[in-house]
Amino acid sequence: MANVRVTRRVHWNSGHRLYRPDWTDEKNQEVFGACANPYGHGHNYEMDVTVAGAIDPETGYVLDLKVLKDLVEDRILSHLDHRNLNVEVPWLEGLNPTTENLVVAIWRRLEDHLPAGVVLERLVLWETPRNYVEYTGG
Amino acid sequence: MANVRVTRRVHWNSGHRLYRPDWTDEKNQEVFGACANPYGHGHNYEMDVTVAGAIDPETGYVLDLKVLKDLVEDRILSHLDHRNLNVEVPWLEGLNPTTENLVVAIWRRLEDHLPAGVVLERLVLWETPRNYVEYTGG
Amino acid sequence: MANVRVTRRVHWNSGHRLYRPDWTDEKNQEVFGACANPYGHGHNYEMDVTVAGAIDPETGYVLDLKVLKDLVEDRILSHLDHRNLNVEVPWLEGLNPTTENLVVAIWRRLEDHLPAGVVLERLVLWETPRNYVEYTGG
Amino acid sequence: MANVRVTRRVHWNSGHRLYRPDWTDEKNQEVFGACANPYGHGHNYEMDVTVAGAIDPETGYVLDLKVLKDLVEDRILSHLDHRNLNVEVPWLEGLNPTTENLVVAIWRRLEDHLPAGVVLERLVLWETPRNYVEYTGG
Amino acid sequence: MANVRVTRRVHWNSGHRLYRPDWTDEKNQEVFGACANPYGHGHNYEMDVTVAGAIDPETGYVLDLKVLKDLVEDRILSHLDHRNLNVEVPWLEGLNPTTENLVVAIWRRLEDHLPAGVVLERLVLWETPRNYVEYTGG
Amino acid sequence: MANVRVTRRVHWNSGHRLYRPDWTDEKNQEVFGACANPYGHGHNYEMDVTVAGAIDPETGYVLDLKVLKDLVEDRILSHLDHRNLNVEVPWLEGLNPTTENLVVAIWRRLEDHLPAGVVLERLVLWETPRNYVEYTGG
Repeated sequence: MANVRVTRRVHWNSGHRLYRPDWTDEKNQEVFGACANPYGHGHNYEMDVTVAGAIDPETGYVLDLKVLKDLVEDRILSHLDHRNLNVEVPWLEGLNPTTENLVVAIWRRLEDHLPAGVVLERLVLWETPRNYVEYTGG
Repeated sequence: MANVRVTRRVHWNSGHRLYRPDWTDEKNQEVFGACANPYGHGHNYEMDVTVAGAIDPETGYVLDLKVLKDLVEDRILSHLDHRNLNVEVPWLEGLNPTTENLVVAIWRRLEDHLPAGVVLERLVLWETPRNYVEYTGG
Repeated sequence: MANVRVTRRVHWNSGHRLYRPDWTDEKNQEVFGACANPYGHGHNYEMDVTVAGAIDPETGYVLDLKVLKDLVEDRILSHLDHRNLNVEVPWLEGLNPTTENLVVAIWRRLEDHLPAGVVLERLVLWETPRNYVEYTGG
Repeated sequence: MANVRVTRRVHWNSGHRLYRPDWTDEKNQEVFGACANPYGHGHNYEMDVTVAGAIDPETGYVLDLKVLKDLVEDRILSHLDHRNLNVEVPWLEGLNPTTENLVVAIWRRLEDHLPAGVVLERLVLWETPRNYVEYTGG
Repeated sequence: MANVRVTRRVHWNSGHRLYRPDWTDEKNQEVFGACANPYGHGHNYEMDVTVAGAIDPETGYVLDLKVLKDLVEDRILSHLDHRNLNVEVPWLEGLNPTTENLVVAIWRRLEDHLPAGVVLERLVLWETPRNYVEYTGG
Repeated sequence: MANVRVTRRVHWNSGHRLYRPDWTDEKNQEVFGACANPYGHGHNYEMDVTVAGAIDPETGYVLDLKVLKDLVEDRILSHLDHRNLNVEVPWLEGLNPTTENLVVAIWRRLEDHLPAGVVLERLVLWETPRNYVEYTGG
């Protein structure tokens, strides 16, 4: 059967600031600018979660999108939505929550939890409508 | 000359339901949920048709987009727009009209009809603003 | 307190065809064109539901958007989503499901069900990304 | 000369949480749900600033959009962008930063600062792609 | 019958520059900035054409959208698309092609050409995704 | 460290016409249609500039997006915005300004100017909301 890629787009809101606790405030401000402001800001994140696999000849699906939606809800959105990424997410602990670090951390939370025969293919994470990061593993 | 990819985005509306005639209603409802509802529903489909080729040094085009637009109109949109995908499209006969099956069937209708030197590279088919399927052949 | 308008955007999919059972097939085709095709087609509907009221000085809300979301889910989306508008919705019975008729019928289902002090102000209903209808009552 | 409305769309990011310091944590959680989470979250805000006036027969403009853009930058965006709305904005002090309260506070910062002959007509403020608030004064 | 508003969104591309032939180049540059550059630039214009009227109880339409689409094509798009607004459009002659002047000129081309019982209600014209002008007559 | 792709979306407006000076007007019109109209038209161009590299373990960035934004502003936007692509851009001289030719010329202006360790990965250039061209080098 043909191999296709299936995507579910999801949405959530988080707070964060970019900074390293081992740097001075001046150094953080110099490197991260307004993103280091101490009281934090936040974003409406959009993410495209793409999986790949053969079409099941019985159903015509690669996978039931409800399975993918529930997986992302359970392992990602329920942890990040309306949360502060610097202090409330155990699996982001010690990471500066840039879009780059965030997309890789999300990948690691998802890659081994897909149904048999389906692989995680690509994540695209928008921090704003003009900036986004893609990760395909590796 | 440089090899680039050129995309035309198209739009149409169809009706469908997901079900297998060889399954009971209960089994269809269990596997496809509301998508199996007997009177059918429908979608505003959006599709990006991407072709690849060398830029023609004479025109600066890979191909005249009007050629691509007319091809997609003739072989795809005129068959699907304002039609029911379960019963009105001979080349979908016997297929459960999931987005996955639909994108592969569209690929097969287009791949051998492009001008010389131009290949079909990728189809991206949105069933809703949050769900889409990609196919690159193979 | 200031009077403001608050909007929730919702999304659903339905099937329909435009036709009058008291007209011949030829007359339906002449007036409604491809929209009258007998096996039906469908749409991804988007709707902006706008309510107006004074800001509650205690909460800073006109109303909790969850109340509005649940009301629209209960009285509209649960009836229309993945349904055929010609045959499966009792409160659309006898209506030709044009966008105009649909938006007025939805208005009537919502206007008397809002919390005290909040009024229905405007509905905007997109049938496709290029066509929409607005209703403000009256 | 004809009277028209001219809009500039702007974008910024802020952090916030919804809560009242005079309520218990339990009461805040009950009324504002996840929006009351203590470490805060944030949004990519989009706002349409609409002004009205007669077309200047000399320039063909109601006003130079650069004037409007600079005014919004100076009086609004430079105060809100990458800031926490609960603690860093003097003119929001004492306000619970709901979208409703925010749009009214922004109106009051802009209404008396437009060039002669131009009036503030409407603000539309999106907190997420699915929720927005409009204010027209009064 | 209920009175509703129906909108068709249209798209075209034009070239233009902002300048007054009776001003010096310096004065044009001072007032219109880069928009006065002598070789011109252009835009992908988007316009929402909104009409209002009672729903026809026979068809469920305010008007057949094909009639509106053909009217806009005939009286507006066929004159503006792929044209230079400074020199190729007789009904824009002598006008500086700002978005404000353009929307009023388009209104005057459409207002008396609608079917009986239908009135032109509103035009919204986007020059860029961040700037738009609205006109409602008067 | 993980290798990710980072994208900045940019926007500008230009004027152009498609034609070859060594062809007759008739031949230009025959091949390029309305795009060859002698007074020119124009577009709101959108472009996604994607770079790839390892995440810097110190900052959590592949690169500071401000560096990418300034590079694109300096080498591309300041040359193209509000300019005519046929006559005002030295590095497009002698090129018919099709989207294909434009994206390759932009690639060549950017590829050797990125910070060490970062490579240009992909350009996607929209000429209209329905037509776009991608280039990945080679």
